[in-house]
Amino acid sequence: MEKNEHNRFNSRVDAIVLAAGKSSRFKSATSKLLFPLCGKPLILHLLTSLKELQLQPLLVTGHQEENIRALLDSDSSFSSLKTITQLEQKGTGHATLIALPHINNDFTLIINGDMPLLSSKSLSQFISNHVKSDSDMSIGTAIASDPHSYGRLIKTDISCYIQEEKNCSDEEKLCRTINAGIYIFKTSILKKYINEVEHDIKSGEFFLPDVVNRALNNNGSLQIFQFDFDEIKGINRLSEAHEIQKILRRKIINHWIDQGVWFTQPETVEIDINCNIGSYTKIEAGVIISNNTTIAQHAKIGAYSILDHAQIDSDVQILPHSIIKNSKIEASATVGPFAHIHTTSHLHKSTRIGNFVEVKKSSIGKQSKAKHLSYLGDTTIGSNVNIGAGTITCNYDGFTKHKTIIYDNVSIGAQNALVAPVTIQQGSMTAAGSTITDDVPAESLGIGRARQVNKENYVRLRKQKHREEKELILTETHQTTEKKTDV
Amino acid sequence: MEKNEHNRFNSRVDAIVLAAGKSSRFKSATSKLLFPLCGKPLILHLLTSLKELQLQPLLVTGHQEENIRALLDSDSSFSSLKTITQLEQKGTGHATLIALPHINNDFTLIINGDMPLLSSKSLSQFISNHVKSDSDMSIGTAIASDPHSYGRLIKTDISCYIQEEKNCSDEEKLCRTINAGIYIFKTSILKKYINEVEHDIKSGEFFLPDVVNRALNNNGSLQIFQFDFDEIKGINRLSEAHEIQKILRRKIINHWIDQGVWFTQPETVEIDINCNIGSYTKIEAGVIISNNTTIAQHAKIGAYSILDHAQIDSDVQILPHSIIKNSKIEASATVGPFAHIHTTSHLHKSTRIGNFVEVKKSSIGKQSKAKHLSYLGDTTIGSNVNIGAGTITCNYDGFTKHKTIIYDNVSIGAQNALVAPVTIQQGSMTAAGSTITDDVPAESLGIGRARQVNKENYVRLRKQKHREEKELILTETHQTTEKKTDV
Amino acid sequence: MEKNEHNRFNSRVDAIVLAAGKSSRFKSATSKLLFPLCGKPLILHLLTSLKELQLQPLLVTGHQEENIRALLDSDSSFSSLKTITQLEQKGTGHATLIALPHINNDFTLIINGDMPLLSSKSLSQFISNHVKSDSDMSIGTAIASDPHSYGRLIKTDISCYIQEEKNCSDEEKLCRTINAGIYIFKTSILKKYINEVEHDIKSGEFFLPDVVNRALNNNGSLQIFQFDFDEIKGINRLSEAHEIQKILRRKIINHWIDQGVWFTQPETVEIDINCNIGSYTKIEAGVIISNNTTIAQHAKIGAYSILDHAQIDSDVQILPHSIIKNSKIEASATVGPFAHIHTTSHLHKSTRIGNFVEVKKSSIGKQSKAKHLSYLGDTTIGSNVNIGAGTITCNYDGFTKHKTIIYDNVSIGAQNALVAPVTIQQGSMTAAGSTITDDVPAESLGIGRARQVNKENYVRLRKQKHREEKELILTETHQTTEKKTDV
Repeated sequence: MEKNEHNRFNSRVDAIVLAAGKSSRFKSATSKLLFPLCGKPLILHLLTSLKELQLQPLLVTGHQEENIRALLDSDSSFSSLKTITQLEQKGTGHATLIALPHINNDFTLIINGDMPLLSSKSLSQFISNHVKSDSDMSIGTAIASDPHSYGRLIKTDISCYIQEEKNCSDEEKLCRTINAGIYIFKTSILKKYINEVEHDIKSGEFFLPDVVNRALNNNGSLQIFQFDFDEIKGINRLSEAHEIQKILRRKIINHWIDQGVWFTQPETVEIDINCNIGSYTKIEAGVIISNNTTIAQHAKIGAYSILDHAQIDSDVQILPHSIIKNSKIEASATVGPFAHIHTTSHLHKSTRIGNFVEVKKSSIGKQSKAKHLSYLGDTTIGSNVNIGAGTITCNYDGFTKHKTIIYDNVSIGAQNALVAPVTIQQGSMTAAGSTITDDVPAESLGIGRARQVNKENYVRLRKQKHREEKELILTETHQTTEKKTDV
Repeated sequence: MEKNEHNRFNSRVDAIVLAAGKSSRFKSATSKLLFPLCGKPLILHLLTSLKELQLQPLLVTGHQEENIRALLDSDSSFSSLKTITQLEQKGTGHATLIALPHINNDFTLIINGDMPLLSSKSLSQFISNHVKSDSDMSIGTAIASDPHSYGRLIKTDISCYIQEEKNCSDEEKLCRTINAGIYIFKTSILKKYINEVEHDIKSGEFFLPDVVNRALNNNGSLQIFQFDFDEIKGINRLSEAHEIQKILRRKIINHWIDQGVWFTQPETVEIDINCNIGSYTKIEAGVIISNNTTIAQHAKIGAYSILDHAQIDSDVQILPHSIIKNSKIEASATVGPFAHIHTTSHLHKSTRIGNFVEVKKSSIGKQSKAKHLSYLGDTTIGSNVNIGAGTITCNYDGFTKHKTIIYDNVSIGAQNALVAPVTIQQGSMTAAGSTITDDVPAESLGIGRARQVNKENYVRLRKQKHREEKELILTETHQTTEKKTDV
Repeated sequence: MEKNEHNRFNSRVDAIVLAAGKSSRFKSATSKLLFPLCGKPLILHLLTSLKELQLQPLLVTGHQEENIRALLDSDSSFSSLKTITQLEQKGTGHATLIALPHINNDFTLIINGDMPLLSSKSLSQFISNHVKSDSDMSIGTAIASDPHSYGRLIKTDISCYIQEEKNCSDEEKLCRTINAGIYIFKTSILKKYINEVEHDIKSGEFFLPDVVNRALNNNGSLQIFQFDFDEIKGINRLSEAHEIQKILRRKIINHWIDQGVWFTQPETVEIDINCNIGSYTKIEAGVIISNNTTIAQHAKIGAYSILDHAQIDSDVQILPHSIIKNSKIEASATVGPFAHIHTTSHLHKSTRIGNFVEVKKSSIGKQSKAKHLSYLGDTTIGSNVNIGAGTITCNYDGFTKHKTIIYDNVSIGAQNALVAPVTIQQGSMTAAGSTITDDVPAESLGIGRARQVNKENYVRLRKQKHREEKELILTETHQTTEKKTDV
């Protein structure tokens, strides 16, 4: 019911997200708003919170505008959001002014785009608090242990105003109540005062606090809403992005612990915000789970394994030091250690892929095994197949790629080279050490290797010769030396 | 001497461990008491502390009783401990009542089973403090910064009693002195009051605090012993198990630092409680040491290596990213990086196993080497043997496993397939690229490969043909397109 | 300008570093002063700070003197520093006395050698503060939260003196102002009082605080300079070395964050103090960067990779779990995952080395590839070469090592053995599964493998035989059992 109440308020709110800044203190090739935090670009964290409140904000963009637009377009959750361009960087007041013609609702919510920790719950309280209060405007504040670099909300017996840090008196600097950069206005009030301020300012830059202060000077009513400082932390420097990522990462891990996931070293594990893990699953040290990976229940992910856009079904065991990328592992399969499964590979139920094995663009049938030092590329393998140690599919002939097809119940000998295109029919075998260039018929043996011969006493004789040569060299060197001394 | 004094007291004490609870808030497939913390199931941490005091507790079990019994039976240190069944979960008082007929000693110590951090030293002080005081009973308390969810020990001018959280008045809730769940009674006093309480309660559940409070109401004398809160932390949630495991892990690492082990990143290393490490040994980042592994002095364990039930002798170098499991590495051997030694393998002195090499169920003689991309399975290798890069023992013929035996001073060429069963006699060699199917006699050369032929200008001609075909296709496509346009 | 001022003062200062102690509480095979912290022996951290101030200290050495001398000699920055021997460990006063004959300057700075966190900035302030004050002497102090084990600076209304912990009264022990072990004297004052103290002490050991106290008793003027406690932390135990290494490591990481390096898990990364990283480079979890490694801009170092004396050019991608040692990777190359490049290897621009590939003492030309399960040792490869999966260079014939040379535009087939010495001429190919023992001419095909034959129905017949044998055994076992029962 409370949720519905919030939603009712939210439907009377239009939101503006300020996303035009250049973030000059942020050392990064991309805009800070595009910076990935736990697998999600910075600005999408805030947009997700807004979306949870059914808010469809208008973004004011400028710096790297086309990259931000491309990001929105790439995600169906956000592609319908509108952006508007602020050509010159003339401050948050100016950015709001540009957006206002597109605002039709009773209330206008304005937020800086770089607040990834802001929760939809707090935002919702901020909005409903404002609407219920019937104030002209509300601003979000927080108590900072170190308010340095933030604007302050100064309240005295006779006045209340926002002061930018650079304009703060020594006394004002002691104030620890900071302006969080979150505002909601009655739209009519906002339009009235922003135009007044703009009219005064003329062509220069101006800021939302100027608008708030103007309204206060004209007896506008202000509601103050205090956020937890941790929620409104912004990001101006790369070091702050690191801090916030650490907070986000801990939150994600704690969420999965509460869901019944067991970690042997939770501090060293990375899980992207868009991944999913079933309960009773065990995650060992240093595992990295990213990019929409899903892991079912009762799985085990071994230490230092990396799962990137992987689908791991229940009871799968990923042994340590394995990499799974863009691939699917079905129930009860065992993979690793030191395995590399990638590029749309598919391991069916109860397969067993072992150490130093690469599987690329291949499908491995149920209960099939490739346990040691193999490369399986562009290969389709049936069920109950055994691939001998050291076997290589030769899928590239120096010109183009070809496929290897292995049917059910085949046993490929160790140290084979399977020269694609090639098909190994059902129930057949190949001899160890074979180079298989031709198809093998069903239940037959393919053999492609030379017959061994032993050269008896070869080593004895060679060693003897080696010794003699050495002695000869030594003798010669000795003689040379002697000759030299002769000179 | 002090130790003996404690022991004297302990011989007059019978201990009861309460291990019947269902731990419904603990999301895990097994009982929380079986949950592994630093390689040791939760309940065994407490039982180890008790064992150090020569106490043989009686365990009251219920939930997953058979699993707890199986755990005790699997460990010779604890298999002689007796368990008694509490069929219904009717509280700690009822559990104690069931156990009492088996108690004969002067004093009865009762402890919750889920306190893995409780040290034998503190317990011993608790016991001797009680005996010396000649009180009717002692309870363990602690000062909690957040007492939420704990029972409180309330002391006023006129009374003293234990109050469960749910019954606490607002004022009582402010009390931060919590009941730790550790009790010792004169056995006679315990029997007297537990029967009185049980008689009142009839069939319902009742708790030890009820017994304590009853005794206090009848002028029983109570001794209070304050434990450090960190020691008496219990585990009700999976998140608490994570916290306690972190504390335990730090303790173990600090112990080994004090013993002269050097860690480059102690925060990322895991060492099970049952492992042993010699001084002057260096452990790099992210190493995981578990399952009764022992490491001697002056060894070096490289980053991200995993040792599971391994025996590592002195001066061994395990290079990074190596896995040793159920195997023994003798002095001065070098293993890795990216090596996998497992399933009862045995590397003798000064062996050298290199990258992407798997050794399974094999013995490698002293000073022998296998440095690159090899699989050695079911193999016995003598001393001073060199295994060429890319060599595979073909130990499985698709039906059964066979052994490879290589005697001293053999040199196996690179890229060999050794088809077991096969024996390579002393001092012999095999040629690179050979498939060895037959035994090689001593000091002889085994060679099993085809002779190379060069097809001169083959590539030039093929490339030319390739180009011509491409042009043909292009021409045809062009013609097809033209035809289509014709239509 | 300020820097010049400091330098002007520094030119009037001679420095003595006390480096003779035995560090008996430090469990290590080497002297604690040689202990590596972030890739730099402990004592060199302090010597670097002194060097930044253009100070050339005289070291008083004793325990493991020859090792300290060897360390200095191995580093051109410090090889010109002089050492003087203190034969017996008779205290810091005695050590200073031995050094004094070599001091000619107006001021004498004396520092314990085990303070790796002391910054040149603080030291410089200490010196200039002293010179400007025209005091007889200055001592460095710090406020310790736990002053235990440190000497205290005691100031009362009527006196001021340094008291060793062991001589502290209970009241003095409460003093948290500790003597940091950093002194500067007017050289004339130092010589006067050190001789007086030494004269009294005769043959026993004596300490610098004795000299300070003697001067104070004779109305010498003392300047007190308070350092941050974190800067003057000394190292007496291995556990303290761990703490300090952690602080140093965090400092280094924060430095690189400020330079625009992005870390996904900064807490788990190790970077030696002598390494260099370009901005916009991304470093993933658990990476270890040591031993003068340099990484250019826009590179990416994948999780759990280890770079030891590596040179990584711009836009290089090191994929996870790779090891680069003593090698150079040119721009835009991609390496890994699970690759091992070592022993003066050189990857030219845009090369691609893939999984389970070892490159040793080899040069790989631009845009060449070796993507799967290969060993390239003592090999020179031209540009645009493709090395097929599972290919091994056989560089060791059991007696000596040989080279493989592969010219431009060659395509080596999969699962090849290249038996060195061997040369593959420009534009040629080898067939999959070949053992190449002879040179291949330009644009030709080398082929060295046996022709495949298929034994049709071989498996069907063998399985049938296998079944019959099993049945035979079962029948025989049955008969044997029957016979036994007969008896």
